[in-house]
Amino acid sequence: RIPGRIYPSLGQPFSSAASLSEPIRATLFPGDGIGPEIAESVKQVFGAAEVPIEWEEHYVSDKVDPRTESFLTWESLQSVRRNGVGLKGPMATPIGKGHRSLNLTLRKELGLYANVRPCQSLPGYKTRYDDVNLVTIRENTEGEYSGLEHQVVRGVVESLKIITRQASLRVAEYAFHYAKANGRQRVSAIHKANIMRKTDGLFLKCCREVAEKYPEITYEEVIIDNCCMMLVKNPALFDVLVMPNLYGDIISDLCAGLIGGLGLTPSCNIGEGGIALAEAVHGSAPDIAGKNLANPTALLLSSVMMLRHLKLNNKADRIQNAILSTIAQGTHRTGDLGGSSSTTDFTKAVCDHL
Amino acid sequence: RIPGRIYPSLGQPFSSAASLSEPIRATLFPGDGIGPEIAESVKQVFGAAEVPIEWEEHYVSDKVDPRTESFLTWESLQSVRRNGVGLKGPMATPIGKGHRSLNLTLRKELGLYANVRPCQSLPGYKTRYDDVNLVTIRENTEGEYSGLEHQVVRGVVESLKIITRQASLRVAEYAFHYAKANGRQRVSAIHKANIMRKTDGLFLKCCREVAEKYPEITYEEVIIDNCCMMLVKNPALFDVLVMPNLYGDIISDLCAGLIGGLGLTPSCNIGEGGIALAEAVHGSAPDIAGKNLANPTALLLSSVMMLRHLKLNNKADRIQNAILSTIAQGTHRTGDLGGSSSTTDFTKAVCDHL
Ligand SMILES: CC(C)[C@H](C(=O)O)[C@@H](O)C(=O)O
Ligand SMILES: CC(C)[C@H](C(=O)O)[C@@H](O)C(=O)O
Repeated sequence: RIPGRIYPSLGQPFSSAASLSEPIRATLFPGDGIGPEIAESVKQVFGAAEVPIEWEEHYVSDKVDPRTESFLTWESLQSVRRNGVGLKGPMATPIGKGHRSLNLTLRKELGLYANVRPCQSLPGYKTRYDDVNLVTIRENTEGEYSGLEHQVVRGVVESLKIITRQASLRVAEYAFHYAKANGRQRVSAIHKANIMRKTDGLFLKCCREVAEKYPEITYEEVIIDNCCMMLVKNPALFDVLVMPNLYGDIISDLCAGLIGGLGLTPSCNIGEGGIALAEAVHGSAPDIAGKNLANPTALLLSSVMMLRHLKLNNKADRIQNAILSTIAQGTHRTGDLGGSSSTTDFTKAVCDHL
Repeated sequence: RIPGRIYPSLGQPFSSAASLSEPIRATLFPGDGIGPEIAESVKQVFGAAEVPIEWEEHYVSDKVDPRTESFLTWESLQSVRRNGVGLKGPMATPIGKGHRSLNLTLRKELGLYANVRPCQSLPGYKTRYDDVNLVTIRENTEGEYSGLEHQVVRGVVESLKIITRQASLRVAEYAFHYAKANGRQRVSAIHKANIMRKTDGLFLKCCREVAEKYPEITYEEVIIDNCCMMLVKNPALFDVLVMPNLYGDIISDLCAGLIGGLGLTPSCNIGEGGIALAEAVHGSAPDIAGKNLANPTALLLSSVMMLRHLKLNNKADRIQNAILSTIAQGTHRTGDLGGSSSTTDFTKAVCDHL
């Protein structure tokens, strides 16, 4: 049995930036490594499902664009800003050249303040868990990711974790809004305020303020160490989780592990002005790049999140069901799931299920 | 089948502070809530096994001792320093009185720089995992637990994570020493140095330096988010894990969750001058305190770690096997494990298995 709308509405109004007239334009960053192959899979499936989207395709440049101070071109960022929606494959930041991470640059430049990751056990793909159905919402701009670090004296270094009222309220608002829009019952704020009383304390304070405006949603606070223990013992205890940046990084990957890994979990980043940038969060897997071996599921499911944001729910439903049916059927699995299908075989199977 | 020495030697020389002549004196902090009941269980079992230990029992005071600026008395700390070994139940820090956490005070005052938690699937106690056999070693004194936090301007707070070369080398040395002493093959350093390049970068640098001195042990570095995903997918991939304070807090609880929770996992803190303070890391469970319902397993297994540190290996083996046999037999389980035995029933069963 294929569940209903498991990759749900992002709970945001239709992006004001995006044009309602068809064809809708959306930005596509195929990314590096296996990125172009899995992006091709999305294009094939969208074609087969007759999704009225025209892609504006942008690649990571091989030289630094002085206007962004990164390998991301100004034009590519403008494309997302203009379209309001985009889809992104894995980007590999060149190592050791002292350049900012491409992922972090995107988050910063586009004000992508919340990372949303629905995580639900996939019918027919067996892991140790069959009862996962939760959504992690990660603050995506500050916290431990401030980049502010220095050496105090030789052998003593410090880094700054920054928590602001503004960013905490914004992500908390989003989490409750999302929970309500998707009929979710409970929001858990994850923290370590027993140790970081001021920073995580402020984060909790903001969550409490927002929680008051949503009496229909149960609000609770869970300490991160305890949260991780409960997640591995009984993930069904959780519904929507909201948390500062690093905890979100850790817990979203932990949750992905519960249902099979990053190759199966979609995500979407919510940005300023209603931008939605859906994203496969797995790596670029250079070892299998270009070999027609990659699993396009995470990017395909991310594209479903993008379609829901665009209110193209019929298309989203059809594509989601085709993907999940293909996985459930089990005859067309890629190597990461223990099968021997190629990327194009899997993609064809999804198209056949449409 | 009960496995061999699963709660192993701490890999440290016999504490110089502890007297070799019997009876050996050891400090006991029964702690709060269920603490006295589970401490009583240890005393019973030690009595039945004729362990040549004399306890110096110390309780948390109800007033602040000016010499420690906490509810821990100076005498209790001196007792651990003098004996070199101790066993500790849960301590509940009085809330909202602005007092330092008792656990943190102990770590600081006794220089407890490493928290060691062996985590192994228990025969006969079924969880979703039956293949866990790893040890987490947590830096216990600095990192995100610096306590240095302040408000920068209204609505903007920051906290400092401090990493020092000295503390990082010390815990890395301990981890490799422990691995070697216990025939472990691999040490994984867990980090987020792709983001916190300087702080976690320094931690890794220290681990690498130490790793060079142990060519027989495989050394690897794993990013914390990926580590959590791998742990829930396949914990058998890990052996010894060493990491900064907060990551250790998170990952050690996650691992405890894999085998059934904090009620089943022992720990021991290693301090300056070879101090070993074994500790049950679960809470004081005030809701069931005094009701003869608590599970003493974590404290009992912690006491086994203490015995190995004292090189009382025969006693340690006998007691460990009695605990594990009781759990495996399954007829005397406390409520947390789905049974209906009392603390004293369980304790009696362990004594009967001796
Ligand atoms: C690649 C890395 C910088 C990134 C992060 O830490 O945020 C990744 O782990 C993620 O979750 O998107
Ligand atoms: C109680 C708390 C301060 C403590 C910690 O965060 O270290 C606990 O979680 C632990 O792991 O011992």
